Amino acid sequence: MLTDLYQLTMMQGYRANGCWEKEAVFDLFFRTLPPGSGYALAAGLEQVVGYIENLHFDEDDLKYLSSLNLFQKDFLAELRQFRFTGDIDAVPEGSVVFPYEPLVRVKGRIFEAQLLETALLNLVNFETLIATKASRVVAATQGGAVMEFGLRRAQGPDAGTFGARAAFIGGVKSTSNVLAGERYGIPVSGTQAHSWIQCFSSELEAFRAYAKTFPDQCLLLVDTYNVLKSGVPNAIKVGLELEKEGHRFLGIRIDSGDLAYLSRQARRMLDEAGLKQAIIVGSNDLDEETIWAIRGQGAAIDAWGVGTHLITSKDAPSLGGVYKLAAEGEKGIFTPRLKVSENTAKITNPGIKKVVRFYNREGKALADLIALEEEEFNSPALTIFDPVQTWKRKTLEDFRTRELLVPVFRGGRRVYSLPELTEIQKYAARELDTLWGEVKRLANPHRYIVDLSAGLYDLKQKLLREVNLGLEEREG
Amino acid sequence: MLTDLYQLTMMQGYRANGCWEKEAVFDLFFRTLPPGSGYALAAGLEQVVGYIENLHFDEDDLKYLSSLNLFQKDFLAELRQFRFTGDIDAVPEGSVVFPYEPLVRVKGRIFEAQLLETALLNLVNFETLIATKASRVVAATQGGAVMEFGLRRAQGPDAGTFGARAAFIGGVKSTSNVLAGERYGIPVSGTQAHSWIQCFSSELEAFRAYAKTFPDQCLLLVDTYNVLKSGVPNAIKVGLELEKEGHRFLGIRIDSGDLAYLSRQARRMLDEAGLKQAIIVGSNDLDEETIWAIRGQGAAIDAWGVGTHLITSKDAPSLGGVYKLAAEGEKGIFTPRLKVSENTAKITNPGIKKVVRFYNREGKALADLIALEEEEFNSPALTIFDPVQTWKRKTLEDFRTRELLVPVFRGGRRVYSLPELTEIQKYAARELDTLWGEVKRLANPHRYIVDLSAGLYDLKQKLLREVNLGLEEREG
Repeated sequence: MLTDLYQLTMMQGYRANGCWEKEAVFDLFFRTLPPGSGYALAAGLEQVVGYIENLHFDEDDLKYLSSLNLFQKDFLAELRQFRFTGDIDAVPEGSVVFPYEPLVRVKGRIFEAQLLETALLNLVNFETLIATKASRVVAATQGGAVMEFGLRRAQGPDAGTFGARAAFIGGVKSTSNVLAGERYGIPVSGTQAHSWIQCFSSELEAFRAYAKTFPDQCLLLVDTYNVLKSGVPNAIKVGLELEKEGHRFLGIRIDSGDLAYLSRQARRMLDEAGLKQAIIVGSNDLDEETIWAIRGQGAAIDAWGVGTHLITSKDAPSLGGVYKLAAEGEKGIFTPRLKVSENTAKITNPGIKKVVRFYNREGKALADLIALEEEEFNSPALTIFDPVQTWKRKTLEDFRTRELLVPVFRGGRRVYSLPELTEIQKYAARELDTLWGEVKRLANPHRYIVDLSAGLYDLKQKLLREVNLGLEEREG
Repeated sequence: MLTDLYQLTMMQGYRANGCWEKEAVFDLFFRTLPPGSGYALAAGLEQVVGYIENLHFDEDDLKYLSSLNLFQKDFLAELRQFRFTGDIDAVPEGSVVFPYEPLVRVKGRIFEAQLLETALLNLVNFETLIATKASRVVAATQGGAVMEFGLRRAQGPDAGTFGARAAFIGGVKSTSNVLAGERYGIPVSGTQAHSWIQCFSSELEAFRAYAKTFPDQCLLLVDTYNVLKSGVPNAIKVGLELEKEGHRFLGIRIDSGDLAYLSRQARRMLDEAGLKQAIIVGSNDLDEETIWAIRGQGAAIDAWGVGTHLITSKDAPSLGGVYKLAAEGEKGIFTPRLKVSENTAKITNPGIKKVVRFYNREGKALADLIALEEEEFNSPALTIFDPVQTWKRKTLEDFRTRELLVPVFRGGRRVYSLPELTEIQKYAARELDTLWGEVKRLANPHRYIVDLSAGLYDLKQKLLREVNLGLEEREG
């Protein structure tokens, strides 16, 4: 039932108009990267698979739909039997992806492919957005650890939990969200809040109480009263007491004030006290830009707690993924379709497509081609060209290729085994390693080449001419 | 399990340090309104109630927590019994609220009050944000209907569904989200997508097929090929055919291009064809500012479909609600507590508090006071003052008052009956009616007065002096 009403009205419409057996191919893709980013990290496929495997209408759902006085009895009876029976190909989670590349390709009877649209967009849009954001935040720390803290500011419980999962794919080390830890096996982290400190008659007493309960996980929040005059000296006292008892003092967290200045001072104080191994965690309204700036000022921060900005992708809280008809068919024979628009960027790519990535011998990604499924790229040299500025050409030689889409469902049955989340995280890191640094730059990144294959380009031009002829005739 | 790990580590800490029976009062409030807004509409209480009534740890949860090697056996055994047993007061959903006003006040044993923090913030932050955004979008239409379309761009399934609910509280007429319709009884709306039009060999054929299936709910999407040259003329053809058969043609939807220009032209064409009752729905990346601007240019749009910007509150995707300790106690005797900060805006208001709203005889809201629970405001005239610029004073006379917080839980038992969602929507509209237009202005609204009562002000000053004395002693 997690769908838009119009999917159901269209389904009934297809049925009433003899299109129940008509088949279609839809592509899920986005047109623009999150602002400032030179790439995106695909995520959400595991949730898509879960959604499709559970997809059905129960009696309460049917009763509700019936109450709307929109649907015919026999259509509702069909819904009672409904299961997804089509094919799905998708880009594995953690893959580096770019605009216009199909992340999910659905082939099936048109009414069932149509039904999936809303939920697939919801899941892939959000998780891809957060995985991408997280990878940028992690990149800004240049090797520091990032802890995801955002559940309280997330847009609802799912956003907190799916968001923690996506952030982990993007390279975050841990989450504060216990449910995400339980469900996905993400390491959980967290110690105490200001309210803990306030609940004791002094900061020192609060620190000692915490150290007594968690002698080996003792990270102390030092900014309740005054970081340098009270918090750090008290933490050092308790840290030395712990070390004397044979425990290892974990460190401190600073959650307000100027993190660059305070962390440098705190580092010096900890080092002078002989607590060189104690780490400093910084938090408070951080995002990739702030982390980059604070690091640039020599902050002595080992780990970063990141909340609101990451879990909501605050500077750009939506990825504009769309789900567009690419082909129509009957009994497995498909005809490419395209949607025109006044806005050139919104004209779709027709046909059943694949995405081919070209690598050099060192394994660096050179360019992607969105191509027709049947096209092969075996020749030793290939000239590719920009689909708008067609005079911009580039010849690739000595390359190896890889197709991004993998089979996930065939005839409604899953044929893909979902990787472990830690594997996805490692794969995402390897994927990012295949990109040149220029494409990953946090600001004004270099634009990675994504062209259309000659086959797809020609097909698109042909269909556009046909549509224009049709329009002219109508106007005439 | 929808909580931050540190809530659980603190709970174990409280237990280990003899604070298991210690009581506390926490306030949930936000410090700043969403940018541009002069008010907020509280929402999320129903989900908070659902969360608290279901709050427990099952065996899988306990097994997972045990696997973390952080928690002691007897603490986990306590969690097995865990139920919320405290008191909660809250502002009813749909109430107009302002910064620093407690929206939810939790009184209970400290460890249980602490546990609620994350989930309460998650739910109240998001729904309040979206209800507020929706009320602004609705206001911008000046009487037009708003349809919520955002599920595909929402931050996960809950965001789409809780967001649709919050949007309805804010005055939206319907949602495209079928699950939100089923779960909350929100009217659902939706007709067809571009893919429907593309699936037929011509636009006219697609329109006729739709009209045949839904003769009385026929709203046609007219921008697949060309709005004025193809879409509107074809829609008029089908509309006239429907009307001839005794049906009422609903109208058209325009989802791209310049909505101001296209809607005016389409209106003229529909009117000239005798379809004066047909409505025009506009959609495509709308928010309150765009709607206001398009309306200002004389757009002939009767209903607005609003998606991404509403469901994510795109310009400000988080409300910075916090949950702060206000008092500590034992056996029902409480001592006010406050948290200091270098940042004056972050100093909390101590004590067990209420929010009193003052109205004039016409029912317009004059000012709010955040006051101590025991304070009464029965005198015929009351002088209130700004808590920062204390020379700014205002004397209220001939007023009536209302307390915003109502009892929701007492001793863990719910004492509040949840209103129907349609009642909440009506209540929210009445609440907005109590505000002067200046406070509701979409840009640069007038700041509504929220002062501290004399009692609360004095208490806060006293506690601040004590804290400063303490800090000086420590430094000395």
